[in-house]
Amino acid sequence: MSVQGVAKAADNNAHPRLVVSASDVPQMQKAIEQAGSFQQAFTALKSQVDSQLQHAINIPVPNDAGGGFTHEQHKRNYRLMHDAGILFQLTQDKKYADHAIAMLEGYAKMYPDLPLHPKQKEQAPGRLFWQSLNEAVFLVYTIQGYDFVYDYASKAQRETIENGLFRPIAKFLSSDSPQTFDKIHNHGTWATAAVGMTGLVLGEDEWVEQALYGLDKSGTGGFMRQLDELFSPQGYYTEGPYYQRYALMPFVLFAKSVEVNQPERKIFEYRDSILLKAIDTTIQLSYDRLFFPINDAIKDKGIDTVELVYGVTIAYGLTNNAQLLDIAKQQDQVLLTGDGLNVAQAIDAGKAQPYHFASKEFGDGQDGKQGALVVMRANQDDKTAPEKHQAVVFKATAQGMGHGHFDKLNWIFYDNGHEVVSDYGAARFLNVEAKYGGHYLKENKSYAKQTIAHNTLVVAERSHFKGNTKRGNQYSPEVTLFDTDENLSISSAFIDTAYKGVAMRRTQALVSVEGRDLPVVIDVFNVRGDKKRQYDLPLHFNGHLMDTTATLKSNTTSLAPLGSRDGYQHLWLTAEAKPEQPLSKVTWLNDDRFYTMSTKTLDGMKLLFTRTGANDPDFNLREDKAFIYRLDKAKDVDFVSLLEVHGEYNPSKEFTLEAHSQLEGLDYTTEGDVQVVSFKLQGSPAMILAFAPEGKTEQEYQFSYQGQQYKFSGQYALLSQQ
Amino acid sequence: MSVQGVAKAADNNAHPRLVVSASDVPQMQKAIEQAGSFQQAFTALKSQVDSQLQHAINIPVPNDAGGGFTHEQHKRNYRLMHDAGILFQLTQDKKYADHAIAMLEGYAKMYPDLPLHPKQKEQAPGRLFWQSLNEAVFLVYTIQGYDFVYDYASKAQRETIENGLFRPIAKFLSSDSPQTFDKIHNHGTWATAAVGMTGLVLGEDEWVEQALYGLDKSGTGGFMRQLDELFSPQGYYTEGPYYQRYALMPFVLFAKSVEVNQPERKIFEYRDSILLKAIDTTIQLSYDRLFFPINDAIKDKGIDTVELVYGVTIAYGLTNNAQLLDIAKQQDQVLLTGDGLNVAQAIDAGKAQPYHFASKEFGDGQDGKQGALVVMRANQDDKTAPEKHQAVVFKATAQGMGHGHFDKLNWIFYDNGHEVVSDYGAARFLNVEAKYGGHYLKENKSYAKQTIAHNTLVVAERSHFKGNTKRGNQYSPEVTLFDTDENLSISSAFIDTAYKGVAMRRTQALVSVEGRDLPVVIDVFNVRGDKKRQYDLPLHFNGHLMDTTATLKSNTTSLAPLGSRDGYQHLWLTAEAKPEQPLSKVTWLNDDRFYTMSTKTLDGMKLLFTRTGANDPDFNLREDKAFIYRLDKAKDVDFVSLLEVHGEYNPSKEFTLEAHSQLEGLDYTTEGDVQVVSFKLQGSPAMILAFAPEGKTEQEYQFSYQGQQYKFSGQYALLSQQ
Repeated sequence: MSVQGVAKAADNNAHPRLVVSASDVPQMQKAIEQAGSFQQAFTALKSQVDSQLQHAINIPVPNDAGGGFTHEQHKRNYRLMHDAGILFQLTQDKKYADHAIAMLEGYAKMYPDLPLHPKQKEQAPGRLFWQSLNEAVFLVYTIQGYDFVYDYASKAQRETIENGLFRPIAKFLSSDSPQTFDKIHNHGTWATAAVGMTGLVLGEDEWVEQALYGLDKSGTGGFMRQLDELFSPQGYYTEGPYYQRYALMPFVLFAKSVEVNQPERKIFEYRDSILLKAIDTTIQLSYDRLFFPINDAIKDKGIDTVELVYGVTIAYGLTNNAQLLDIAKQQDQVLLTGDGLNVAQAIDAGKAQPYHFASKEFGDGQDGKQGALVVMRANQDDKTAPEKHQAVVFKATAQGMGHGHFDKLNWIFYDNGHEVVSDYGAARFLNVEAKYGGHYLKENKSYAKQTIAHNTLVVAERSHFKGNTKRGNQYSPEVTLFDTDENLSISSAFIDTAYKGVAMRRTQALVSVEGRDLPVVIDVFNVRGDKKRQYDLPLHFNGHLMDTTATLKSNTTSLAPLGSRDGYQHLWLTAEAKPEQPLSKVTWLNDDRFYTMSTKTLDGMKLLFTRTGANDPDFNLREDKAFIYRLDKAKDVDFVSLLEVHGEYNPSKEFTLEAHSQLEGLDYTTEGDVQVVSFKLQGSPAMILAFAPEGKTEQEYQFSYQGQQYKFSGQYALLSQQ
Repeated sequence: MSVQGVAKAADNNAHPRLVVSASDVPQMQKAIEQAGSFQQAFTALKSQVDSQLQHAINIPVPNDAGGGFTHEQHKRNYRLMHDAGILFQLTQDKKYADHAIAMLEGYAKMYPDLPLHPKQKEQAPGRLFWQSLNEAVFLVYTIQGYDFVYDYASKAQRETIENGLFRPIAKFLSSDSPQTFDKIHNHGTWATAAVGMTGLVLGEDEWVEQALYGLDKSGTGGFMRQLDELFSPQGYYTEGPYYQRYALMPFVLFAKSVEVNQPERKIFEYRDSILLKAIDTTIQLSYDRLFFPINDAIKDKGIDTVELVYGVTIAYGLTNNAQLLDIAKQQDQVLLTGDGLNVAQAIDAGKAQPYHFASKEFGDGQDGKQGALVVMRANQDDKTAPEKHQAVVFKATAQGMGHGHFDKLNWIFYDNGHEVVSDYGAARFLNVEAKYGGHYLKENKSYAKQTIAHNTLVVAERSHFKGNTKRGNQYSPEVTLFDTDENLSISSAFIDTAYKGVAMRRTQALVSVEGRDLPVVIDVFNVRGDKKRQYDLPLHFNGHLMDTTATLKSNTTSLAPLGSRDGYQHLWLTAEAKPEQPLSKVTWLNDDRFYTMSTKTLDGMKLLFTRTGANDPDFNLREDKAFIYRLDKAKDVDFVSLLEVHGEYNPSKEFTLEAHSQLEGLDYTTEGDVQVVSFKLQGSPAMILAFAPEGKTEQEYQFSYQGQQYKFSGQYALLSQQ
């Protein structure tokens, strides 16, 4: 996406001048008189605010933690100040301005004397809220509300409000909190955006400079440095999509405000349009409207969050990219801004084009080389049900700081609108006081972050980097192969620092097979150790177990935890088996489809079934299911698996199709640098996937398999078996 | 609903003459030339059949059980014979007729020599299929297919087909299987419908008479007797809605066929239009399109099943009731019949009216007095989201024969589109061979049918009627109270035969409370015993446990089954508590809402939490959760509870509202015949629900509560506390 044209600088004296500029207002005033989705959004907001205006203003003394009454009331208040402000701009009805001003005055009266919040969080407490992060969010909304009523307020009112509220809160968030303000972190972005936007409205250019370049204006901190460091060149934010969408909000709001006031900074073009890339990447990191739940992530979050509504709306205003309208339609929320009007009118005019979800490697880290999140998709441009396409999310990213999970080379698989091979996400019930005040639950650390909660190798029942974030932050995997063509997407990554003395390489491919509508996933996990250790390779599946080729020895009359630490203490061991056939198959049903994971049986391999819930006295965890392939004492091992999507279960129409795996053979061998996976599905030709994960694109390879010679150039090939 | 007009008798020589009559055909032929949903349905079927016609005819020798290849192939075949037949009628394209005739000839060639099916079920085996029930279904479809091509077939072809297939199969299903044919049971209905419809096409009046009045034509068996006995006067079928919709199919198809050929029988008016009532009741016994999963029921079944599509379509043809069009729209399947054309055109013309789901007592048994299924609803006519309304299903029915569960006075609660207080339904994966061939699993008997799998009282860890169906069939509860008004629905039922020496009465009410959008459920369970026994009152909930007022002692490091038999062996005991506060509250989250069940704490009461899954070596059961109030040694006990629906959990928009119960007090007392429940919710006035479950409508009652005198007339009153 590229930026089309550059806005003119706003009149230096005109208000509003942030996300909505004075020049937007006349068209918006006109649009609310005409039928359309903009008018509908206006009417909905007006009716909501009108009903809120019935109630007396309530600005309680801060008392409660997140989710508690005073916390929520102050959140309601900042939204109302913002919303009443924009309604005043649109309708010129003074009751909205009067209400917003009265609230601002109320805060101006209380704020100067507020001590730190009584339920303050350990780090960076706020005054209105338990953490200064919420305080910055408060300011971002409230300064917009003030900007809307600035011209209407009397000089005396402005003095009261600025001196009582905006100057002290800006000071509190900047010079009084240098450790947050100058931090290269999303908390820093909120603080700099809040203070910078306040500077723009109050005409405090110094604050804007500090917001952009750090308290000392050297550029070692501040918004521009955050733009440099917080996103990879592909627009990936190292904490993952859940925090990416959260981090996005202050970025786009402040950048839009800067664009309105100081277009000469060309802020949206900065670093090869990094902000537009970040917005687009946030969309890309979703399946069926929900974000990939890697790292600490609440699973219900998706593209309809207000942060991405702002992101998409502002991006459309800059680019007129018609695919963004597809996303905006799914968001189904029209912003009452100038860009919101553009989006609404374009959607009403039927201009939306289907958004294309890509198979893509999203590099992590400032240079994009600290590993990557690899997304491989199939059938995503299907005409009838694109939301049901297949997606592999291969997590070869860096640690992702404090919210990162210990899950190097983890993967998730989606199909049919469901997360079929799953990631636990975060153990948290946001804003639910009964659940540890809505914080991350202790099981987030003891389970959700641990390696065993993911679909990747656990050595000796210990998590990657011994579960130490600091250590994790120092290392990242190397993605040595990623490519996508019409028949397959493939990626390979390597890391030898997650465990001392153990090197891990994983190669995954999403492969279309002749004669089948649905692709298969090939998964090869190479482990090389310097001595014998226990290896566990878990797969967390959503659905109901249908069948296994191995005979299960189930624990029917008593359950015990699988282990004692690193997440194992939370797993009940429900069954064990010793696979004896060459292929060990596990089939489960999710919604109306069957899934079979077939794994080449290795000597001494055990198959364990688990369910989450042990050592969870408060029932904080979901009861999720997994199976684990275990080798007690292993050194060099290659786990080779193939996941099939098959059949249909239709109890309503009373038929079941292809409930059994169609995989007849799966074999694996290596020759020099080349790994060879051969597989045969019933009704399809025998295939070979050959790949040289460390190879070069221009290289030529050859290998023999079952007496036949094969050759290929580049890092991989999908071949018919001869 | 009443029958509008009476069709004229079909021409005695005209074909088709069953569900589609010769007089329907010209309009249908016209309709496929005009744009509309009838044409769309035609085009869809045509394209599907055209693709099937590419394949060679395959009539395999019967070999497989349900879900296996030959089973499914014969099912595909009977559908294709039917579908090709109707396409021939609509298009006059001979290829369809030729294909149907070739298939009929194929079956005619094979059938006479077929022995009983190799995988025959214990009772009533078939020849083409493992059970004769499937054979009757085969005949119902196939005779319609034949009827469509009858005029086109040569005399020789007709002789071959009738002598090779229809005469032997009709004989097999009637005189060779008297125990099924004359049985007053849905298997009997399929058999009589199949044979009767065949009689109508072949001109065998004797078969029609036998189908209607039994093999000996005495009326002790046969279709009319089934109409007399299988439905209650309210149109309730004793096995419950899952089997009701299944049973419906042969009833409506045969009745429609009789109506076409012998309108003078006025079969749809028979027994006060019992068939129309049965169709309507089937719709009523659903929530958000899915049937109430009482007794043996697969939970995915709902109003879009083909049986109910036929039922609704034929009922609309008779009544022109515009509310049926609402259901037809939700079914989204247009039948290629004369009635289907009426429905399609009426929907296309926008004639549909919102279907009204009622609060209603559906009497069970031939006389409607063998207990009842009571349905109580609130907000079901809401304009914006009627599908999210609240519904209490109070199961005070008779046993319901072999598929009945041991769950006297059980209940289910729905809200927000979800089954919140749940019934396990059946333990079965229909047609999934890996799951015991798609049969009912053994856990269906050992768990799903047992009392503890339901939300009703278990005495001494034994199921009602000691889990003996024969005994269960002898008794039923008495519903002594049901009423509904704008503020509440209430019902009370009594049974003293489920356990020897224990009388149980349950009263439930769905009550609107001033100041709240969402109703509460009041639940009073009176138990009177002749000696001390253990009482368990379970509640199976869907969702994630949020909070309890009692301090949980959780089993964090080992789990054991709660008991050893009657379903208890399948429950892991996950936690225990001893409620000490006057009200014991359990709060859980389902989707975006909170639910709190508050129960008056009784002396010695224990609270147990369980999860399904013990003694389930093949992972056949879902992992469902329940809590159980237990009294170790009790005689006369009143369990008094109130269920609140409250708040909103919105992690996407990051707010949580009213996550805590608002119930401040719940009290219970009796005075003579009057039971008094008082309750107070925060922000609402204190209320009293008084009821005399054995009282009379015209009676006057008075009682004193907290020093105040109250009086009311009738069986119940909802009063403000003074």
